[in-house]
Amino acid sequence: MEVELLFITPDAEKLIEAAGRTSYLSFEKSSEDSAEAFVRMLIKRNHLSVLEHAYATFRISGISRSFTHQLVRHRICSFTQQSQRYVDESRFNYVEPETIRSNPKAHSTFVNFLNEAKKTYSKLQELGIKNEDARFVLPNAVQSQIVVTANLREWRHIIELRGKPEAQWEIREAAIKMLKELQKHVPTVFEDFEIDERSRTISRG
Amino acid sequence: MEVELLFITPDAEKLIEAAGRTSYLSFEKSSEDSAEAFVRMLIKRNHLSVLEHAYATFRISGISRSFTHQLVRHRICSFTQQSQRYVDESRFNYVEPETIRSNPKAHSTFVNFLNEAKKTYSKLQELGIKNEDARFVLPNAVQSQIVVTANLREWRHIIELRGKPEAQWEIREAAIKMLKELQKHVPTVFEDFEIDERSRTISRG
Amino acid sequence: MEVELLFITPDAEKLIEAAGRTSYLSFEKSSEDSAEAFVRMLIKRNHLSVLEHAYATFRISGISRSFTHQLVRHRICSFTQQSQRYVDESRFNYVEPETIRSNPKAHSTFVNFLNEAKKTYSKLQELGIKNEDARFVLPNAVQSQIVVTANLREWRHIIELRGKPEAQWEIREAAIKMLKELQKHVPTVFEDFEIDERSRTISRG
Amino acid sequence: MEVELLFITPDAEKLIEAAGRTSYLSFEKSSEDSAEAFVRMLIKRNHLSVLEHAYATFRISGISRSFTHQLVRHRICSFTQQSQRYVDESRFNYVEPETIRSNPKAHSTFVNFLNEAKKTYSKLQELGIKNEDARFVLPNAVQSQIVVTANLREWRHIIELRGKPEAQWEIREAAIKMLKELQKHVPTVFEDFEIDERSRTISRG
Repeated sequence: MEVELLFITPDAEKLIEAAGRTSYLSFEKSSEDSAEAFVRMLIKRNHLSVLEHAYATFRISGISRSFTHQLVRHRICSFTQQSQRYVDESRFNYVEPETIRSNPKAHSTFVNFLNEAKKTYSKLQELGIKNEDARFVLPNAVQSQIVVTANLREWRHIIELRGKPEAQWEIREAAIKMLKELQKHVPTVFEDFEIDERSRTISRG
Repeated sequence: MEVELLFITPDAEKLIEAAGRTSYLSFEKSSEDSAEAFVRMLIKRNHLSVLEHAYATFRISGISRSFTHQLVRHRICSFTQQSQRYVDESRFNYVEPETIRSNPKAHSTFVNFLNEAKKTYSKLQELGIKNEDARFVLPNAVQSQIVVTANLREWRHIIELRGKPEAQWEIREAAIKMLKELQKHVPTVFEDFEIDERSRTISRG
Repeated sequence: MEVELLFITPDAEKLIEAAGRTSYLSFEKSSEDSAEAFVRMLIKRNHLSVLEHAYATFRISGISRSFTHQLVRHRICSFTQQSQRYVDESRFNYVEPETIRSNPKAHSTFVNFLNEAKKTYSKLQELGIKNEDARFVLPNAVQSQIVVTANLREWRHIIELRGKPEAQWEIREAAIKMLKELQKHVPTVFEDFEIDERSRTISRG
Repeated sequence: MEVELLFITPDAEKLIEAAGRTSYLSFEKSSEDSAEAFVRMLIKRNHLSVLEHAYATFRISGISRSFTHQLVRHRICSFTQQSQRYVDESRFNYVEPETIRSNPKAHSTFVNFLNEAKKTYSKLQELGIKNEDARFVLPNAVQSQIVVTANLREWRHIIELRGKPEAQWEIREAAIKMLKELQKHVPTVFEDFEIDERSRTISRG
């Protein structure tokens, strides 16, 4: 899995402060380092709507269709996904779960089957079946990629939900990688989240 | 594919009229048969927001995961879907595209592969792999079922979009089946849609 | 303020159960009294998305434009509101806050001003000004009415947020009246909310 | 009315292209000037979802509460508005409709009334009434300011809807001012909109 930050609102904290001070008409209080204190106050008081003015866009690749099917259920996001309807998938890569990779018999069963899937897909193409129908044989493991944009309030929600121990491992891994990027670029907005590297989970302090 | 109407707002036209007359405070104009005329006026003037007060819920079953992955991209809907993470899929049914079924060689290739997929899934289970990871071998063709609720304005949008000739055949088929149910129960709200049975497409008059 | 329940999904708990069991394919477990237990389990585990399949519609009247301006900020709702742009407001009623009503000087100041507002509005009409511009003199206190539809998950969210001690008194009052209706019709979905009649606030048990 | 562009995604067309090419996995086709052609193709084919990855934020000030009450009905936006609940409004400015300003009798009636409103508000404050209740006397004409963020697909929708001849003059004026800013910064995304300066309306070519 690869997570690439394609875009984040530059000086996001400053934009959040500029928008947020509108509610109180107190522009005079802005100063060079007031944005961080302002953002901390918003988070502490749970006034999260102002965080919606800043955005981040990620490209996530090397992930399964099980992952993307789950991710696109978040309705306050915008998605653009690699389409199996039009793309020729005859040379697909795949995602192998750790529990399978570390079990030699399961691993060889899995790899053989994925190779069979690839051959079957190509054979259907040769028999004149269009990609949009040939894809019916593609397993969940086939790699996809997706570009997703959400505002920072929604990213906080997604990361909290998908970083929990009960979340599926693939989406949990994506949440951790995205959080690391977000903490690098807008630390104040995400400083209350902590990654436990051993259990690969996220908690909120 | 089976499409079952689980719920539709009873007397939906009456509720739409009751809500809609609020904007103009003209309750006096309601009469026994005024609801239909009121709904027709709303649609003609494109004042569709009032249609949002009425809802319909469908259960769609016997559809592929390609279909559901597409359907859940509609963000103004509520979905509950059969989860491959928890459900044991070792006895799955599958959807076979017509272009494959009607091509003998493609058909036998497809059927053999789907049987192989079923065996592989069961073998992974026997090797101790949990359902949530064994599902990585499940092809798109594996049948799913989904319950979806949306308001009548959104159903108009979905049906128009997904009934077009360029829509994928499976989602087009679902749009036609849902439209038939909706035209039976709230004819006035959907009377401007027409099904072309030969091309299996929907157009708006 | 008057709060009238215009519509609620009949047998909402049954519909929620029917939709919810889809995720686990365990229809066999449905029985005459299983719906309540199922809904309680969903709420306990915080699996609230299934509650989105059921809906309630209220007409709220005798409320100020301050109230409606706040209410329409909820984005997962559908609204139809009395329009000051088209309706003749020359005989408007108004909402008087309790702190003003109980203060004799404030009360007479308020009442005189509202009468002045009514005269000014009518005078502008006589001078040929259209309702859509004459309304610029209408104070926030002028009564409006609004019809609002939301799903039961969203109603839980609105009622929790707007029933808190820090919520504005008018929206808090509406939350209490709506909660009473909802507890009457779908008790299981709202049984964890409690109204404190003395402080006129809502808390969740 | 003042419309200030607080933020727009820098190089928005490039981000849209980067996201959009994901669906077809055709990164190789990107070149220095391919973004504009790509965006034009999306708009021509009505594949507008990819435009959702880019955002613009405006501060709109000197507008009435009638305007903001209408604006916040757009649900795919984020808003931060000057709150009459907390802000002291005793020195408010106001918006005067052109039909009133150009009618001498209506003008003096309007101005006198607005002065009366200001005095009444201050008097209520002196009598110990809190801002959150004193605001009940504030007319729609009292100036507000609002910060609004939306993605470029939604801005296209808002500008088309609110620039029509039948839209209210104040929101139409805002649509025109915002469109001018957007055409300056992301011309390709908005080049199909045209402003008719004489009628102050917007049409789409």
